[in-house]
Amino acid sequence: MPAHRSGGITGATLARLTRANVDRAQLRLTGKVLRTPVIRSDQLDASSGARLWLKAESLQRGGSFKVRGALLAVEALAAHGSLGVIAQSTGNHAIAVALAARTHKLPTFIVLPCDAPPSKVRRIKEAGGHITFAGTTLADRVVAVEELRRLHGYDVIDPYDNPHVVAGQATATAELLAQAASEGVRLDSVVVPIGGGSALAGACLAASGHGAAVIGAEPEAVPAFTEALRAGGPVTVQARPTIADGLRPDRIGALPYLIASRATSCVLTVPEEDIYAAMRAALIGARLLVEPAAATALAGALKYASGPGRNTDIGVLLSGGNVEQRLVADLLAEPDSSFREGLAS
Amino acid sequence: MPAHRSGGITGATLARLTRANVDRAQLRLTGKVLRTPVIRSDQLDASSGARLWLKAESLQRGGSFKVRGALLAVEALAAHGSLGVIAQSTGNHAIAVALAARTHKLPTFIVLPCDAPPSKVRRIKEAGGHITFAGTTLADRVVAVEELRRLHGYDVIDPYDNPHVVAGQATATAELLAQAASEGVRLDSVVVPIGGGSALAGACLAASGHGAAVIGAEPEAVPAFTEALRAGGPVTVQARPTIADGLRPDRIGALPYLIASRATSCVLTVPEEDIYAAMRAALIGARLLVEPAAATALAGALKYASGPGRNTDIGVLLSGGNVEQRLVADLLAEPDSSFREGLAS
Repeated sequence: MPAHRSGGITGATLARLTRANVDRAQLRLTGKVLRTPVIRSDQLDASSGARLWLKAESLQRGGSFKVRGALLAVEALAAHGSLGVIAQSTGNHAIAVALAARTHKLPTFIVLPCDAPPSKVRRIKEAGGHITFAGTTLADRVVAVEELRRLHGYDVIDPYDNPHVVAGQATATAELLAQAASEGVRLDSVVVPIGGGSALAGACLAASGHGAAVIGAEPEAVPAFTEALRAGGPVTVQARPTIADGLRPDRIGALPYLIASRATSCVLTVPEEDIYAAMRAALIGARLLVEPAAATALAGALKYASGPGRNTDIGVLLSGGNVEQRLVADLLAEPDSSFREGLAS
Repeated sequence: MPAHRSGGITGATLARLTRANVDRAQLRLTGKVLRTPVIRSDQLDASSGARLWLKAESLQRGGSFKVRGALLAVEALAAHGSLGVIAQSTGNHAIAVALAARTHKLPTFIVLPCDAPPSKVRRIKEAGGHITFAGTTLADRVVAVEELRRLHGYDVIDPYDNPHVVAGQATATAELLAQAASEGVRLDSVVVPIGGGSALAGACLAASGHGAAVIGAEPEAVPAFTEALRAGGPVTVQARPTIADGLRPDRIGALPYLIASRATSCVLTVPEEDIYAAMRAALIGARLLVEPAAATALAGALKYASGPGRNTDIGVLLSGGNVEQRLVADLLAEPDSSFREGLAS
């Protein structure tokens, strides 16, 4: 990872994030991000046998919860006189950083792979980000990022290993717990998707002191957290293709690992067909268009709910809704019955 | 219309509904229906040139705003010792009445056409309604309803000509106005779909004293309100086929007409292709699955926004989200560019 400023927070501070950081992050984000709704679905409840509380970050600004962490990170950099920001990502972090930087009137470079999905490219442009295409691998992008940094003196915002990002992502789960509480419900668990680990680490921080079990869900194709737990630290896994483009990082971030390895109750690996089924279930059963990463969390929740004694209140972080139209069309082109079969599987 | 009790409200009261009835309805519905979220979409705002405030009743219990009126109507009947209720409908009113009657532990008969969509049949069964299939025409269903009424002594709940229904549907618009106000915005207009007219009449009641213009949107294929205004009263129109199954009534209700003909600012007729495009726009641009009736309102809002001097805050009643999976698949099977073209049209 290239060296970068992170707004005055040093490496030593990284491991000391607590629920208090989340509370401060919530205050700082008030009015800047949407307090997205928590959706209930009779159909999904009936199918799962649990009560699901769906935090619809698919309806968030920029189409994902990532704008939370990006805003805090950019805000901290802006306060320290940053000249501009750089992010590399194939997905939501890039859109979120571009949106956040526009808010602070900072120029932004986004480094994308040449085969980035057209809808993501469009959304980054709409948010005012300057796009640089660089090869197809992470290594290609890292080279391009470093070059831009040297050339412009801009600051790089890492999508995972940044305390502002983790504290910001945590506010989504904190809101979910509070929104359920405002309806008199103490969630028994929250299920979040695992990519680089910022959502999971954030959920652990948000739930500390609350008592809700934090459940992580990752694609069977990219078991980065499962393998990290086994190895006792982040390792690069042999990733297979997955529909969940937001969960493709083949290595958990160091900071997320530090937090999540201590506080996660359970990790579920989700097969591709369950991700598809959950995406369809969210659309038909809850009328929400969610991206495959979010569907991975829902699939995890449905699996978790089917366990013994788990007929309880389960929060689900529907992390985003940025999805290619074609994928949704393919999903729905199957017969109607596949929805129920999918849910039952 | 067969004679029926309507919970102590007589015909003479019908024309006297006011905003005060809406306020009372809101109090009675608190905690029984969801205060559905109002969704903003940067993409739709950019495309329309206006600020759209999307009231997502697609996320309501039963999948549509109709549960509001049905709950009030059933509650009034239950308070007067009703033995059970009967509704005939091909759509959301039937699901809503079944749900409402279950809440009050009243038996329910729902009379459906033989060709009713499978998803609607399933949802009515899930809500505990007893289904009677009767032919394919309204006349067939009315005969069946009358027979059930005579046989069981149950009460018929009309989907439009019922003051509880109109006051209940009004609460959706009342909430929308209040939710925008809580963000410091006074909506300039609200756009609602026109079927039998209960949403439109409700919006007129909710907006009275507020100042928001009430805009109705109906399919070009079924211009029941446009023709009623021309004729000076409800008339049966020659309906052509429309994708908007919720807006198929070929005649506006008498009570809705009485209220809406005096207070509606503007009626827009929406061609089928604009309904399709708006449904796609809601899904891709706002990540909400809405039914064609709701998309008709969105299409109307997009059309209205494109008028001169209308770069303003427009509320849109996204009335429901009950839609066949196959229809969505067909919609999305077109190339990605159709979304923008659709919006621009």
